Amino acid sequence: MSTDETMSVLTVTPENKSMEDIVALCKRRGFVFPASEIYGGLNGFWDYGPLGTALKNNLRDQWWRDMVDCPPDGPDGESVNIVGLDSSIIQNPKVWEASGHVGGFNDPMVDCTETKRRYRADHLQVSMARVERSNGTVENLALIATLEGDGEDVLEAKATKLIKKSGGGKYVSPEPDGIGLYPDMDRDTQLLVIGPDSNKPGSLTEPRQFNLMFKTFVGAMSGEDNVAYLRPETAQGIFANYKNVLDTMRVKVPFGIAQIGKSFRNEVTPRNFIFRSREFEQMEMEFFCHPDDAKKWYEFWVQARLDWWKSVGVDPGNLIRREHDADELAHYSTACADVEYKYPFTAPAFGELEGIAHRGCFDLTQHQEHSKTKLSYFDQEKNERYLPHVIEPAAGLTRGVLALLTEAFTPDDSRPSKVFMKFHPRLAPIQAAVFPLVNKDGMPEVANKLYKELRKTYSVQFDAKQNIGKRYARMDEAGAPFCFTIDGDTMENNTITVRHRDTCTQETIGIDHVANFMAEKVNG
Amino acid sequence: MSTDETMSVLTVTPENKSMEDIVALCKRRGFVFPASEIYGGLNGFWDYGPLGTALKNNLRDQWWRDMVDCPPDGPDGESVNIVGLDSSIIQNPKVWEASGHVGGFNDPMVDCTETKRRYRADHLQVSMARVERSNGTVENLALIATLEGDGEDVLEAKATKLIKKSGGGKYVSPEPDGIGLYPDMDRDTQLLVIGPDSNKPGSLTEPRQFNLMFKTFVGAMSGEDNVAYLRPETAQGIFANYKNVLDTMRVKVPFGIAQIGKSFRNEVTPRNFIFRSREFEQMEMEFFCHPDDAKKWYEFWVQARLDWWKSVGVDPGNLIRREHDADELAHYSTACADVEYKYPFTAPAFGELEGIAHRGCFDLTQHQEHSKTKLSYFDQEKNERYLPHVIEPAAGLTRGVLALLTEAFTPDDSRPSKVFMKFHPRLAPIQAAVFPLVNKDGMPEVANKLYKELRKTYSVQFDAKQNIGKRYARMDEAGAPFCFTIDGDTMENNTITVRHRDTCTQETIGIDHVANFMAEKVNG
Repeated sequence: MSTDETMSVLTVTPENKSMEDIVALCKRRGFVFPASEIYGGLNGFWDYGPLGTALKNNLRDQWWRDMVDCPPDGPDGESVNIVGLDSSIIQNPKVWEASGHVGGFNDPMVDCTETKRRYRADHLQVSMARVERSNGTVENLALIATLEGDGEDVLEAKATKLIKKSGGGKYVSPEPDGIGLYPDMDRDTQLLVIGPDSNKPGSLTEPRQFNLMFKTFVGAMSGEDNVAYLRPETAQGIFANYKNVLDTMRVKVPFGIAQIGKSFRNEVTPRNFIFRSREFEQMEMEFFCHPDDAKKWYEFWVQARLDWWKSVGVDPGNLIRREHDADELAHYSTACADVEYKYPFTAPAFGELEGIAHRGCFDLTQHQEHSKTKLSYFDQEKNERYLPHVIEPAAGLTRGVLALLTEAFTPDDSRPSKVFMKFHPRLAPIQAAVFPLVNKDGMPEVANKLYKELRKTYSVQFDAKQNIGKRYARMDEAGAPFCFTIDGDTMENNTITVRHRDTCTQETIGIDHVANFMAEKVNG
Repeated sequence: MSTDETMSVLTVTPENKSMEDIVALCKRRGFVFPASEIYGGLNGFWDYGPLGTALKNNLRDQWWRDMVDCPPDGPDGESVNIVGLDSSIIQNPKVWEASGHVGGFNDPMVDCTETKRRYRADHLQVSMARVERSNGTVENLALIATLEGDGEDVLEAKATKLIKKSGGGKYVSPEPDGIGLYPDMDRDTQLLVIGPDSNKPGSLTEPRQFNLMFKTFVGAMSGEDNVAYLRPETAQGIFANYKNVLDTMRVKVPFGIAQIGKSFRNEVTPRNFIFRSREFEQMEMEFFCHPDDAKKWYEFWVQARLDWWKSVGVDPGNLIRREHDADELAHYSTACADVEYKYPFTAPAFGELEGIAHRGCFDLTQHQEHSKTKLSYFDQEKNERYLPHVIEPAAGLTRGVLALLTEAFTPDDSRPSKVFMKFHPRLAPIQAAVFPLVNKDGMPEVANKLYKELRKTYSVQFDAKQNIGKRYARMDEAGAPFCFTIDGDTMENNTITVRHRDTCTQETIGIDHVANFMAEKVNG
């Protein structure tokens, strides 16, 4: 492997990667498709194609292995006990009353009376656009709302249209104090704002509350008595089962309960590909411990989770630990830290990948009160009864997939594919490809035998179509770290050619050594 | 292993197993809990505890491995190509219009005007109960509705109450022609029936249609424009993505697309534990082939799927292949076979575990018409353009878990636990347990080292509490096939004791051979 090649790869950071290119590759190579695409899609929903499903399953399985089957040893070197759970998406609605989601899981929303669209109020940025008239004077033009994340080009395009209708002139950027969020304005000022998809000032309403839970009806009637919700998080399914786990699994505090599954939030403005979608997957673990030990476990899990993301191939330079400020914390929480990743749409800043929250005994207290069920724990060693405190590492599986896709995406003009996906060999959706150089002379048979042997342990693809350069290019885009080619030498002396994705270099190894080669690269 | 012991185990069939006992063990040992149990549960929803989650994950992973990663060779010995998919639970509602679920996914329902309960009409069995008066005459007493699956004891209990109020006498069973299903009766007769939870004749309405899809609303408005549905099957997500997969994955007909995921049906009478629940998991594969080859692939997949259930530990004697009669088939289907299992509540008859349907080109035709998107396939080898035909093996993951739980459940009065769970070692939620005989003399350290080594590859539990007999009993109920005990001999000469779950026999092996022992038992 040439050092130069490695370096050129490592200098590509999320700042240089385009979301459009990543989304296009995901579509083109079968990672992620818009849901129901042949019907025009459905805003905020995505389907995972064959490669995306494999990548997501690999990340899911790695988390389960590292959290449930083989969790890290604790802060004092002790074994850590975590058990798995899989609770229903639809629970008794009292669960969500207890958790506070029925009463409080709301975002302030504004409606546009012109277009009938609805926006999250705190996602609307309002700017006082200005115009320089032909006589050189600079005037205030209009208060224009744009969506969080829209560049100034969006503002300028809209202002330019207004300028044409109002006497002409040149667009002038707003002054720094001429920019603010919609909810921060008084009602009089709000009345002057032009909505993001409208041209009429004052078409936006005041912010109103809107519950993010999807509502449905269980049973034959669709009245309010039968309302149920799709869970907005997997965590509450864990708290609702805490007593059952305690009673049946002979666990002792401290211990954890882990769950992976789908959650649903009726986001008003789903955006940024799979970062904020309405149906998504979470990997959550609730760790129950003695109140006196909670701070220690909090520190432990924040560090462990940060380390874990590095272990699955995320560049440490693209991850930060961000401690929440006091005013960001929920009233019951004494500490919360996010593991943040530098997504292309946040770079050079960072966006949430996982949150690790010190939730105190808030959830168990709430469920104890609402269910009238005693949830305290009797600690035999300490001879003490208490409600355990909880540390919650809550990661987004779908956000994790987006981070891995972004990390892997590596433009490289020197290759036919112009880009390759640099997945960690353990997480790659295709871990190896097997090619017969030509479709004759016994090569397909030998290749097929190797393929069927390898696929027992790894994700492997067999490809016999087109020339070898095109096959390498396809595997570069799919992110297969190794391609094994069966050629004339294989037939003569049992050697095969290994081609390395990251360096495009090739080496020759004995066909009998392929299994060891893979074991070392994937697990070593 | 003694042959007698084995035989005594094998003679326990589902007929001898009680659902109540299985449900109780599932609760007691953390396999399956009622969802939101601390809030009184929610009818038709279940949560999977630590052992149930492990069992379900193992079955899920085995299916994925045997269908996607390493599918069986085809009917002519050719390699079979199947790719994975993971589509959204919520799709554009047009998907369900095209599939026929919006218009036709209905069950005829009857309401009880007294109790406000609703029943599936074809689940109501109506019997003419009779009474023998003290003078010896036998009279017709009343038409009483009971639920499908209720025994005659339910009918008798209800009739006995009526008899007491109406002059007394002795209950007499209905004549065979005095029993029928509610929808088969004319309206005049229906007016006389006493509902299952009521005492008033004629309290049941006529059967009416009721759509089984859970409805929700996407976006901020909850009007009919924003209606969406929770998918009632995973299959349609595959058809909706067929074109994307074809365009991106370079697959050639014949090929398959496989998906595992949750589906939801608003069943009116959820029943039989996890057999008919409102939230459940499916493992479905759509196999696309040339119309001329469809019959051959249908036969292939029916046999392959039957074989697969045997391979995961289901006794062949408890499985049958049942071909659907012509009048059971959907209008577009030319053949359908169920793999049925002898559940305790169906025994000695069988109930559905998996259905393998020859769906022709019905689904692709529907989606082609509704989406106005061309879905035909150009077959280069045949130089022919056509809509592929589809063979669909659709298995219930949750029903599979129920079958495995039932198969495993083995009463045995000779053991302290009185029952053991005879899971296949590859599927067992705990594959091995490691015990230090006593909590001193270096044994816990050696045991812990073995435990941490084994858990890298297998699901392993470490247990150091109580005497060894109690630990065996717990592992019998959890279904761990092997217990490894570290004792004085281990410390002296590196041997350990293996205890076999199925026979209660013990053997001594070198601690260095444990890894090989496990590999042979689990994969061999």
